[in-house]
Amino acid sequence: MTLHKAEKVIIITEKMITKGVCAIIDEAGATGYTIVAAGGKGSRGIRSTSESASVIDDFANVKIEVIVNNKQMAEHIMNKVAEKYFQSYSGITYMEYVDILRPEKF
Amino acid sequence: MTLHKAEKVIIITEKMITKGVCAIIDEAGATGYTIVAAGGKGSRGIRSTSESASVIDDFANVKIEVIVNNKQMAEHIMNKVAEKYFQSYSGITYMEYVDILRPEKF
Amino acid sequence: MTLHKAEKVIIITEKMITKGVCAIIDEAGATGYTIVAAGGKGSRGIRSTSESASVIDDFANVKIEVIVNNKQMAEHIMNKVAEKYFQSYSGITYMEYVDILRPEKF
Repeated sequence: MTLHKAEKVIIITEKMITKGVCAIIDEAGATGYTIVAAGGKGSRGIRSTSESASVIDDFANVKIEVIVNNKQMAEHIMNKVAEKYFQSYSGITYMEYVDILRPEKF
Repeated sequence: MTLHKAEKVIIITEKMITKGVCAIIDEAGATGYTIVAAGGKGSRGIRSTSESASVIDDFANVKIEVIVNNKQMAEHIMNKVAEKYFQSYSGITYMEYVDILRPEKF
Repeated sequence: MTLHKAEKVIIITEKMITKGVCAIIDEAGATGYTIVAAGGKGSRGIRSTSESASVIDDFANVKIEVIVNNKQMAEHIMNKVAEKYFQSYSGITYMEYVDILRPEKF
């Protein structure tokens, strides 16, 4: 099978807003997303280095990934999530370029 | 140390076929893989948006990553997994380009 | 919002050295990182294929991701982690190129 270019949007943020982020993804027209439990330290974090080992057991964040084959949709999701949530909640969003099989699935 | 180009194959699919997917990866000659528990919603999913928050606690999927320094091997793994499993099981597979240290490890 | 190029460093290694890896990341000047529990099989692994299904329940590894907008910092983190730990512990490190919003956060 041939590979096709697509965009992957990643959102790492607080678990409590997962539902709202997924609603933005659905409304944008993406066909699916993947959610992974995550811990870590962000640029707003106040955890000191000496505490960093504890974050492994503290999966209060989620990493949400969405693949779309439409760069405009990718940027729309990133902007919507950042505008709606990143004033009030910790989070980052970024995009990667990937090669997919079966573009009709996305 | 110098960086070297390599390919990363990602397979996101149902947890129950992990063993079979890993066997394909091993048979292809890859030296290792990483498995992460995942939830989410796929293009076959019937979950409604109103239920999407529940997926966080429902890690019935896995995200499997394999790095190889051989694009043909990467495409072989993607095609084999898609052919063998994606008629019967939910799943996606895609490829990314990465820069690695120590290419002899892959 | 405009997208900006950045580097993402990924380190997949044994859970027990998470604290030390995160200290290297902090000392390098990165503003945050994300940690995900992971299982898998590495190039030093002695697990046979027949055992590979069990790795799903065996999350003794971590996948640590750091985004920096400075390729030198990215390579510094990779080299430091490899030099300090990868003689004694299993692990790989690689880099991807990503597009970020809000570069001032990284």
